[in-house]
Amino acid sequence: MRERLYIYDTTLRDGQQTQGVQFSTSEKTRIAEALDKLGVDYIEGGWPGANPTDSAFFEAAPKTRARLTAFGMTKRAGRSAENDDVLAAVMNAGTGAICLVGKTHDFHVTAALGITLEENLENIAASIAHLVAQGREALFDAEHFFDGYKANPDYALACLKAALGAGARWIVLCDTNGGTLPEEIARIVRAVIAAGIPGENLGIHTHNDTENAVAGSLAAIEAGVRQVQGTLNGLGERCGNANLTSIIPTLLLKEPFASAFDTGIDLEALTGLTRISRMLDDILNRVPMKQAPYVGASAFAHKAGLHASAILKDPTTYEHIDPGEVGNTRIIPMSNQAGQSNLRRRLAEAGLEVAPGDPALGRILDRVKAREDEGYAYDTAQASFELIAREELGRMPEFFEVKRYRVTVERRKNKRNRMVSFSEAVVVIKVDGQKHMSISDSVDASGSDRGPVNALAKALAKDLGRYSAIIDDMRLVDFKVRITQGGTEAVTRVIIDSIDGQGRRWSTVGVSPNIVDASFEALLDAIRWKLVRDVAPGALPDVAPVRAV
Amino acid sequence: MRERLYIYDTTLRDGQQTQGVQFSTSEKTRIAEALDKLGVDYIEGGWPGANPTDSAFFEAAPKTRARLTAFGMTKRAGRSAENDDVLAAVMNAGTGAICLVGKTHDFHVTAALGITLEENLENIAASIAHLVAQGREALFDAEHFFDGYKANPDYALACLKAALGAGARWIVLCDTNGGTLPEEIARIVRAVIAAGIPGENLGIHTHNDTENAVAGSLAAIEAGVRQVQGTLNGLGERCGNANLTSIIPTLLLKEPFASAFDTGIDLEALTGLTRISRMLDDILNRVPMKQAPYVGASAFAHKAGLHASAILKDPTTYEHIDPGEVGNTRIIPMSNQAGQSNLRRRLAEAGLEVAPGDPALGRILDRVKAREDEGYAYDTAQASFELIAREELGRMPEFFEVKRYRVTVERRKNKRNRMVSFSEAVVVIKVDGQKHMSISDSVDASGSDRGPVNALAKALAKDLGRYSAIIDDMRLVDFKVRITQGGTEAVTRVIIDSIDGQGRRWSTVGVSPNIVDASFEALLDAIRWKLVRDVAPGALPDVAPVRAV
Repeated sequence: MRERLYIYDTTLRDGQQTQGVQFSTSEKTRIAEALDKLGVDYIEGGWPGANPTDSAFFEAAPKTRARLTAFGMTKRAGRSAENDDVLAAVMNAGTGAICLVGKTHDFHVTAALGITLEENLENIAASIAHLVAQGREALFDAEHFFDGYKANPDYALACLKAALGAGARWIVLCDTNGGTLPEEIARIVRAVIAAGIPGENLGIHTHNDTENAVAGSLAAIEAGVRQVQGTLNGLGERCGNANLTSIIPTLLLKEPFASAFDTGIDLEALTGLTRISRMLDDILNRVPMKQAPYVGASAFAHKAGLHASAILKDPTTYEHIDPGEVGNTRIIPMSNQAGQSNLRRRLAEAGLEVAPGDPALGRILDRVKAREDEGYAYDTAQASFELIAREELGRMPEFFEVKRYRVTVERRKNKRNRMVSFSEAVVVIKVDGQKHMSISDSVDASGSDRGPVNALAKALAKDLGRYSAIIDDMRLVDFKVRITQGGTEAVTRVIIDSIDGQGRRWSTVGVSPNIVDASFEALLDAIRWKLVRDVAPGALPDVAPVRAV
Repeated sequence: MRERLYIYDTTLRDGQQTQGVQFSTSEKTRIAEALDKLGVDYIEGGWPGANPTDSAFFEAAPKTRARLTAFGMTKRAGRSAENDDVLAAVMNAGTGAICLVGKTHDFHVTAALGITLEENLENIAASIAHLVAQGREALFDAEHFFDGYKANPDYALACLKAALGAGARWIVLCDTNGGTLPEEIARIVRAVIAAGIPGENLGIHTHNDTENAVAGSLAAIEAGVRQVQGTLNGLGERCGNANLTSIIPTLLLKEPFASAFDTGIDLEALTGLTRISRMLDDILNRVPMKQAPYVGASAFAHKAGLHASAILKDPTTYEHIDPGEVGNTRIIPMSNQAGQSNLRRRLAEAGLEVAPGDPALGRILDRVKAREDEGYAYDTAQASFELIAREELGRMPEFFEVKRYRVTVERRKNKRNRMVSFSEAVVVIKVDGQKHMSISDSVDASGSDRGPVNALAKALAKDLGRYSAIIDDMRLVDFKVRITQGGTEAVTRVIIDSIDGQGRRWSTVGVSPNIVDASFEALLDAIRWKLVRDVAPGALPDVAPVRAV
């Protein structure tokens, strides 16, 4: 019989402390839904009242199986829990569980809060009792606990006991500054349990300042805690929080954890881990870390020649787990055998059934490989990948051809002496043997100039002859640009996300040293993908021959 | 009396197994010199004979205080050590120390090598004896040791004893597949020592496949090994090797290690760690990882409002070490969670001393807040933040004014019937009361068109009159674009990272519905920030009045 070990995710709260990270409300909702699908126990959504985004998130919180948790702090001294407005805002979010941070390090109580040690104990006990009286599950986040314990173990333990005595379900031991090493975490956890706080009421919350956040969490679990806190991809202030993307597969796949604990996450859900990790990077417009344990693109890439040949005989020779268990894939240079079966699965997902051994499979792999060397990224841009495959399979009609374009952006003072911009595009396209030329500006309904890519898109839409009506419901919803390496030089990679009136969402990619060209290429792919789906079969033009590239 | 603990760097050998990494000979030399200055004990330079770069590196190896070490493998079965050509190539590199990898996992001996267990023992003993006979320091790299020990402890130990008996100075325990957790590493190390291999002859070599490579190394040291292997920035195959950039400061600054061990690296050299880490990223043309422990740009960045205000009172409240000890710096970023006290701190770091209560502080915060609502992001773009503050403080000279610009991108077929692009910008600028107009294309040395932003940058650089020479060493190194919300409508946010010849790196931001405008705004900020620093005080123009925005 395995013991229950609880997973507490704080991507939406502590993860948002990452430099440069600011989730929108809808992004928070998307992430919460992904976490819920993965199967974590708690989703900490933010600090209601601390900023408008967090408040808005809780107001329209998604329905989750996981316990949605609001974060806040213990009441301040000199007022009751009932009359603390900061605490009231947290209560008003209406979540079933609430986690309140409080001081446990005597130095912080006196130096940072400027109150007595006794007042701090009373703040903890009264705040937790207030949550419990209101029927909420109460968690106490013991800030600076490990440093506090080292400085004054009796006081640090008294804080935990105040929370536990007031009815807290969980006492979370925080290594706030991230400087405590795993061995010391384990030793202190054992001491806390020996002092009478049961392991089934203890959680661990570590930071990665010495690159030991994952190990510190595992050490605490071995020492007896039964809740582990962390974030997806190790987001978080400074060097980040404990990385749940590494901890979860270790708990499910490695001993002594796999036999000892039930985390509530099953092996089937675990196969979605790589996808969730990439989705978060996508939301943040970050390049996914190739070396990331378990989920990185390089995590199962075998570069050394000796390793790669052994892997072909038996993958266990140089792999600690099967990459499929976390939804990742093995990369073996020059291995078309492994590559081709993956490829057939991806094509089938796009509705393209291809027989094993079809020579087009090798051509598609070669072309994708060559383009990835130029800086394209087909992991994200599934629609552009499909178009390449269709071309090699002879299943891609040539709807239109762009003969040339020109786009101008001008910025100068207007009559009211304000600097304003104006963009204009001219596009010449050949459709059904006829050349069309059209011109468009990029001024939107509110009168602002939306820039050169928008001007090109509008001109293109005018130009498409009988296809114009079909793309009428398309809209560009996201646009991500990165400088990346294309062969030996830096190039710009543009990923465009489009949606249409039927609720489809698809991603396309363009690469060029010139950002406008790269954007235009991604835009053309987006349109071509839409036309493949929506042009009536009878109205399809002839399939074009495979183009030389 | 502290015990000696040896640091063995394998950035140039195992680090080169990283996907996408291929050092040139001169890059290897540069890295070796930096490692030597840091004070590591061993620098593993590569595998002589395995590839031309490694052979060339050893042929003209730099003179180092550290022991330069060649890597190779034990002789093959059926020939003597003297007659093994692969081993001969390694010997011929002429290094004082040689590290030979050999099998210790019975499954690999029989399945991968296809030889008997006895033959493998003989290969190990004969190879090591050969090195020793030639007067070299011999290291035995025990491949798959931990997996091997778990499968067949007697055989795995027999391999180690064969190497030790033949005169190996070091037996390096490798967790080749990276799947062994720290607790298990410690347990097996203790068993090895109990079986008669002294800790002072043992090294540890871990990989980061479960994000525990650093912790595994530390656990092995606590269990008794006296050599630790790893790479700078955790380079290495798959998820990387143990990261020496994290291990070294932990060993020097944290207990129980700091009191117990002398690593040969002193605290003075440790202050060069951040610089070495960034230099390696620079050689690899990688964007340094902001969240990297100890050396990352975010490692001492305090975003949360409560943390930031406490840091101002006492940095130990939220920092586990003083950032200066590793040559890093504290960052208190601007964000809507920050208040006036951390604003003053941030300004002081930019050389702007402002008295508490100065009304400019409130104006700066208001303006930052208003701009963040429009989509700007100042916690990343510190340089743009500084310019806003300077304007509000009346300390921002108006170096130049852009009167207007126009940029055109054209794409059409060239004479050889290939689609090509051409961008051209016209910029009119007023400097020192004089209008300048200049025109530039954006064709680079290789003949490719770098796009409209590059054309604008080049035209601008021509135009800057007496400032042109100052910005000559500036280079744009990263360019990130996101669609974000600015008030009620979607806008484009551009973040530009620039570097200059003095090794500075700074980030600026621009926001507009028009991507070219947003890029141009970030570019102008980058130039203005550079001019503030590098224009001689006597040559500064008058400070402009605060501009209405």
